Amino acid sequence: MDKEFITDSMKADVLIAALPYIQKYYGKTVVVKYGGNAMIDPELKKDVMSDIILLTLVGVKIVLIHGGGPEISSLLGKLGIESKFVNGLRYTDKDTAEVVQMVLAGKTNKDLVSLVEVCGGKAVGLCGIDGGMIKAKKVDDGKNDYGFVGNIVNIDPAPIKKVLEENYIPVIATVGTDDEGQVYNINADTAAAEIAAALGAENIITLTDIPGLMKDVNDKNSLIPEIHVDEIDSLIESGVIYGGMIPKVRSLEVAVRAGVKKAVMIDGRIPHSILIEMFSNEGIGTLMSM
Amino acid sequence: MDKEFITDSMKADVLIAALPYIQKYYGKTVVVKYGGNAMIDPELKKDVMSDIILLTLVGVKIVLIHGGGPEISSLLGKLGIESKFVNGLRYTDKDTAEVVQMVLAGKTNKDLVSLVEVCGGKAVGLCGIDGGMIKAKKVDDGKNDYGFVGNIVNIDPAPIKKVLEENYIPVIATVGTDDEGQVYNINADTAAAEIAAALGAENIITLTDIPGLMKDVNDKNSLIPEIHVDEIDSLIESGVIYGGMIPKVRSLEVAVRAGVKKAVMIDGRIPHSILIEMFSNEGIGTLMSM
Amino acid sequence: MDKEFITDSMKADVLIAALPYIQKYYGKTVVVKYGGNAMIDPELKKDVMSDIILLTLVGVKIVLIHGGGPEISSLLGKLGIESKFVNGLRYTDKDTAEVVQMVLAGKTNKDLVSLVEVCGGKAVGLCGIDGGMIKAKKVDDGKNDYGFVGNIVNIDPAPIKKVLEENYIPVIATVGTDDEGQVYNINADTAAAEIAAALGAENIITLTDIPGLMKDVNDKNSLIPEIHVDEIDSLIESGVIYGGMIPKVRSLEVAVRAGVKKAVMIDGRIPHSILIEMFSNEGIGTLMSM
Amino acid sequence: MDKEFITDSMKADVLIAALPYIQKYYGKTVVVKYGGNAMIDPELKKDVMSDIILLTLVGVKIVLIHGGGPEISSLLGKLGIESKFVNGLRYTDKDTAEVVQMVLAGKTNKDLVSLVEVCGGKAVGLCGIDGGMIKAKKVDDGKNDYGFVGNIVNIDPAPIKKVLEENYIPVIATVGTDDEGQVYNINADTAAAEIAAALGAENIITLTDIPGLMKDVNDKNSLIPEIHVDEIDSLIESGVIYGGMIPKVRSLEVAVRAGVKKAVMIDGRIPHSILIEMFSNEGIGTLMSM
Amino acid sequence: MDKEFITDSMKADVLIAALPYIQKYYGKTVVVKYGGNAMIDPELKKDVMSDIILLTLVGVKIVLIHGGGPEISSLLGKLGIESKFVNGLRYTDKDTAEVVQMVLAGKTNKDLVSLVEVCGGKAVGLCGIDGGMIKAKKVDDGKNDYGFVGNIVNIDPAPIKKVLEENYIPVIATVGTDDEGQVYNINADTAAAEIAAALGAENIITLTDIPGLMKDVNDKNSLIPEIHVDEIDSLIESGVIYGGMIPKVRSLEVAVRAGVKKAVMIDGRIPHSILIEMFSNEGIGTLMSM
Amino acid sequence: MDKEFITDSMKADVLIAALPYIQKYYGKTVVVKYGGNAMIDPELKKDVMSDIILLTLVGVKIVLIHGGGPEISSLLGKLGIESKFVNGLRYTDKDTAEVVQMVLAGKTNKDLVSLVEVCGGKAVGLCGIDGGMIKAKKVDDGKNDYGFVGNIVNIDPAPIKKVLEENYIPVIATVGTDDEGQVYNINADTAAAEIAAALGAENIITLTDIPGLMKDVNDKNSLIPEIHVDEIDSLIESGVIYGGMIPKVRSLEVAVRAGVKKAVMIDGRIPHSILIEMFSNEGIGTLMSM
Repeated sequence: MDKEFITDSMKADVLIAALPYIQKYYGKTVVVKYGGNAMIDPELKKDVMSDIILLTLVGVKIVLIHGGGPEISSLLGKLGIESKFVNGLRYTDKDTAEVVQMVLAGKTNKDLVSLVEVCGGKAVGLCGIDGGMIKAKKVDDGKNDYGFVGNIVNIDPAPIKKVLEENYIPVIATVGTDDEGQVYNINADTAAAEIAAALGAENIITLTDIPGLMKDVNDKNSLIPEIHVDEIDSLIESGVIYGGMIPKVRSLEVAVRAGVKKAVMIDGRIPHSILIEMFSNEGIGTLMSM
Repeated sequence: MDKEFITDSMKADVLIAALPYIQKYYGKTVVVKYGGNAMIDPELKKDVMSDIILLTLVGVKIVLIHGGGPEISSLLGKLGIESKFVNGLRYTDKDTAEVVQMVLAGKTNKDLVSLVEVCGGKAVGLCGIDGGMIKAKKVDDGKNDYGFVGNIVNIDPAPIKKVLEENYIPVIATVGTDDEGQVYNINADTAAAEIAAALGAENIITLTDIPGLMKDVNDKNSLIPEIHVDEIDSLIESGVIYGGMIPKVRSLEVAVRAGVKKAVMIDGRIPHSILIEMFSNEGIGTLMSM
Repeated sequence: MDKEFITDSMKADVLIAALPYIQKYYGKTVVVKYGGNAMIDPELKKDVMSDIILLTLVGVKIVLIHGGGPEISSLLGKLGIESKFVNGLRYTDKDTAEVVQMVLAGKTNKDLVSLVEVCGGKAVGLCGIDGGMIKAKKVDDGKNDYGFVGNIVNIDPAPIKKVLEENYIPVIATVGTDDEGQVYNINADTAAAEIAAALGAENIITLTDIPGLMKDVNDKNSLIPEIHVDEIDSLIESGVIYGGMIPKVRSLEVAVRAGVKKAVMIDGRIPHSILIEMFSNEGIGTLMSM
Repeated sequence: MDKEFITDSMKADVLIAALPYIQKYYGKTVVVKYGGNAMIDPELKKDVMSDIILLTLVGVKIVLIHGGGPEISSLLGKLGIESKFVNGLRYTDKDTAEVVQMVLAGKTNKDLVSLVEVCGGKAVGLCGIDGGMIKAKKVDDGKNDYGFVGNIVNIDPAPIKKVLEENYIPVIATVGTDDEGQVYNINADTAAAEIAAALGAENIITLTDIPGLMKDVNDKNSLIPEIHVDEIDSLIESGVIYGGMIPKVRSLEVAVRAGVKKAVMIDGRIPHSILIEMFSNEGIGTLMSM
Repeated sequence: MDKEFITDSMKADVLIAALPYIQKYYGKTVVVKYGGNAMIDPELKKDVMSDIILLTLVGVKIVLIHGGGPEISSLLGKLGIESKFVNGLRYTDKDTAEVVQMVLAGKTNKDLVSLVEVCGGKAVGLCGIDGGMIKAKKVDDGKNDYGFVGNIVNIDPAPIKKVLEENYIPVIATVGTDDEGQVYNINADTAAAEIAAALGAENIITLTDIPGLMKDVNDKNSLIPEIHVDEIDSLIESGVIYGGMIPKVRSLEVAVRAGVKKAVMIDGRIPHSILIEMFSNEGIGTLMSM
Repeated sequence: MDKEFITDSMKADVLIAALPYIQKYYGKTVVVKYGGNAMIDPELKKDVMSDIILLTLVGVKIVLIHGGGPEISSLLGKLGIESKFVNGLRYTDKDTAEVVQMVLAGKTNKDLVSLVEVCGGKAVGLCGIDGGMIKAKKVDDGKNDYGFVGNIVNIDPAPIKKVLEENYIPVIATVGTDDEGQVYNINADTAAAEIAAALGAENIITLTDIPGLMKDVNDKNSLIPEIHVDEIDSLIESGVIYGGMIPKVRSLEVAVRAGVKKAVMIDGRIPHSILIEMFSNEGIGTLMSM
């Protein structure tokens, strides 16, 4: 059925049906961790921008936090800097750290700001260096050297709050610094979770390339719609949560345990997935809460 | 086609399609002159309430102004007070003026406030007596005596602005007083137009029981979608505007000439007519502007 | 002795004598429960209006709360609706509830607002429906059916506070609603007491048609000038407080026990009784406190 | 007739009679030039303090400006400094200027502040040196040398406005300085007039030891209740205004021509003369206006 | 070496070297107890004024509190009032109290205000009478009569805070009053300490005519740079603190124990001693802290 | 002479000597166009940071605007993108525009922000894309194609003002966008001038690698300390202003003609050149004004 066949009356019904959701989120802060296909496919990108502009207008305080994996790899490649991974983390030497900062804060971040504006919104792009927002130190697991990959030491949410107060959408690139000014590559999922906690956000929504947590990865109908954070350990043990999904889920757990009411992992490949999640009763993807 | 068949994705598309309209009206004041079937039919009443609550949440400052013809007649009937009309205006003696005030400010107004609240919004009901908002004097056309039917001498929009600032929807009953405290029956269309002007409103929308101005009243397809206020005289001459439509159109003309950007006469019998008018490109009904 | 004989110098002395009382009440909230002869006699009505306007100007935040017994009975009579009383409470069926709302919120309330304005003040009239100010439920004593007579479930004082902030005198009609929008007839003495408590008022003053509590109703000189709220039970037992006085006193007790510093029952038949009570050392009537 | 015979009811009438005057002056600034017997007699002093405290509480912004002739002479006498007068102006050498500053700003001013506080008000005492409020230069009439008697070059009303905003009564001693810090003795009538103009005051009231301007100084009933500022020249010519009254009247003229609505010269020997002037229709003394 | 030989580059270095001190004191309140030679020598006076103006501009909230011993004695002498001392305190009879108030609040205070302004700053002079800032009662040690020498009963810091908010430098003369308006002579060191405590000041700096506390008064190099307040008792016992120094140190102790972070006694005879103390790492004089 | 020989007293003198300059610039906005050696030499970089942090603390609103020539060339080189110049402007194809954005907004900008913070200040880095601050279009001189080199169409200074209000130092990279989101390379001198004009700045200071305008480039003593903007044309004609200096001077001319009071071109190779320029009477370099 084509949307051309939707009458004005049906449209009005749809808008009215959104009313309770608008009322529910009015004045609340929602952190969106942006990544995956939704940040690559041009149509999906515009959908995400439209979603966050609409949400902003109906009174939700949206904070967009992004990584930038492919673009970093691409520039490293062009510069002939080898991408090395240790335990799934990109080994980040001085040169790589410089490229990460430059791409995340200068390219990905500003391209997103520009896209918000082309779509009719107002945005300001910041990174963890601005206002000393993300303070970091070298990851030290006692075993491996990851170079300038950083753990978060402190989040100062003041610069984000100011941007929200001025009715711009804050778009945040997740690099951090230490007190000597050394730049660190910070995992965007972790940063989003900690920022959500520091902002006292209502929700954190992570865009992924899977439908959510699934009992059987091959069975589309085995989506787990909701879990309690206390179930995470056993779900990892049983293999339902595995691989790259583990750190993502752990980040969301951090946010929930720090007071964020809902953490949702949704399928960013679905057009307007953010809006569908927030403006329908069932939502989509997998919801974690306490 | 049933709305059950509208998918989440289509719903999201509808919401996104509303985006430019939300942006257009954000922070603007829109006066709705409420009356006709939309104020009688219980389903239509709820639709209007939903529309104005939604519009309020997306940043539009809605002011609801109402008359109350049928309820006044009903109470006058029960009290055995004869309804007398002079030149289409209800002759208003002392007793009638009292009934008009009591019904408009005490019954119709508070019932509407209550309905907004049952539908999830917040409203405060005022009449022209509150804060000396509508100052009036006896209509004097040099020929007829209409009793306490009043012309507006002054509008003080301060009480309405305060209610808007506090995020309540102002619901206004159109009785006025003179400096001695005599109450006057004020035509609701006129009051709505003058209040829109005094508030510096962006739009005034009048709910009627016809589709709008029509070239041929028997031809559904002869709706005139848009006129310039300078065309009103010739449209009256040619009979396109006639009877009770004349004072309605003249009121809207007053608003437009005082700076209100758009005055629209829409068919209140269409569910969610306000939303459809404001959130579609063509709008509905007849638009007057300068 | 005639007031014409009061010299300017004596006038000045009187004004200066008011100084400590003005200082005492500056910035404080005082709830006046208005009723009885002071709400019927035209001269007394103007006196009350002058008193509250003067008090407002010298920095007291006056809230005027009224019932409207006689006017309700009168309209019910004209409409041929029989007034039925159960245990001293007006049995309120659907039709009666509608009349109560209409008369209180539309006639009595707005007439008072208009009178304040004719006397040079600024007022805004609200009822318990506005802003969801008075939430009520059916009185249920397990024995009788009183129809839509309501007990107060919740007071939201925000709308009254906003009106005070804007320097209008709030005039409040005591009807309430439940969440379904059903209107209830609320006892004005009870509502005044609960509103005084919700506002954190300094004083509540109730205008009655007797001099105050009297040891011997036939002995003018037996007025009891002051009681502690703990004495109320024994005063009822001993018959000093009896009949319709009991619920009035019980309401004031509620206010005092909720933190209102003074509750006074004064003789509204004395001209400027409010001013005399507040601006003299002895006051008039009977003062209840803890 | 004794004031003991004034009943509560009569008192209330007096208060109510003050209502229109309170409304008239609400939020307005009134400058009181304080001097003469009203600043010497202990009872009159308390009366003036009561008057300005009461006026402050009913919303009038009172600014008290004072000279201090007798106390200056007294200290000069004790110090053996000869008081010399040139053309009616005190010749002010270095030592005298020092005494003037010390007495006005340190004794008279602070004693008045203390008296306001003992009477229940709040005051802050400033002189023209504070915040650079009164900038002055040497009087130069081309003929005589008056020493450090100053003409006003500039008034910065900011410090007075701040004190008013904080709800203290500003009490102002009229010494001024030049840019090198030299102190000047400034005529208090002139300073009061210029300050009233700089504050955009509604009224200036000067307390004197005569009933006002009189056609015949020996005929009590010859008081001139009101003059237009254009009449001043001819009244001086005809001798009605003469001697020390001339500079007082000229100062008031300055204030009126600079936009102060009313300038009144009243008899400070009458108890509560300020209140009687402001709160009666006829006022007292002589009113100058344009 | 002459300062003419300091190059622009060296000047810039000096300014930059001040940076960390400016950052440290930014927005903090510092009370300066002004007295001794620094209040007598004209050059030193200008230096102090420059220091406090500069500190104000770089964001420090300076409060200048002064006594006025020599000027009081001088006027008492001229007036032939004998200066009598009891236990090192000036016996203050009615006449003396009057002179103290007049000199402190009218001469010393206003001269300082004027000097700040001549040096390019903005100041407002207040004394403890203004706004009821210093409430006092008669000193009563059970043995001697000191006349109207007062102990502090209460400090209301509101007037000082208001002056600071308006970006004027508050200059405070330490006379106080009781509720009957009697003026008391208050020790300036004590008043400064209590005011510093009431303001929640960061620092209190006392200007004296000695280098600080010294182990051996004859050995310039025996300065004690820093003590803990708990050491005061033993330092008095051992004679290091003695005579007039004892009450000064005890006052500073009061401030420190009430939460003021640092109390410093510096040599006011050194030009720009305040700036040198605040803008160098070692500071000068003796620092007391907890 | 070494700065170690500067005594505390001399330091204090230097600080006091800065007082009039601090007073002069207090609350004023000063735009610094940062570039040349001062942006390459590590010591000079720190000096500039110290200067702007100090200026910020003493109440000057500093806006730092930077280009980034060498770093852009370096990355273009590493990526094998040929740097092509047309008429002295870098020809900017799509790939180059991307590199320019990435380097300016992601590397140079954030490195400067980080350096401010390491030096003890607080900064936020923005580029012309943020908040739609710099709107641009393709340079079109009718002759050459420069690719995506842009002329400024509009400056929205709101984001910079917000950053200043929050007491962060705004650091601005000069890329701009058009309404379709195409990024343009904007000349930093031009951008600085237009931003200074849009902010209503007091001063614009441009750091260069020459002492200023010189009559004879080989004669150190031929510096022209001050010119009127009307002299620029003749100075170009006579060859005093030539080559790359011409567009720099023209930019400053734009700022001055738009109301910026002073435009100064200073030698960024001198340590603390900004401070020396602002805090000495003669200043350094060449001053342009109207």
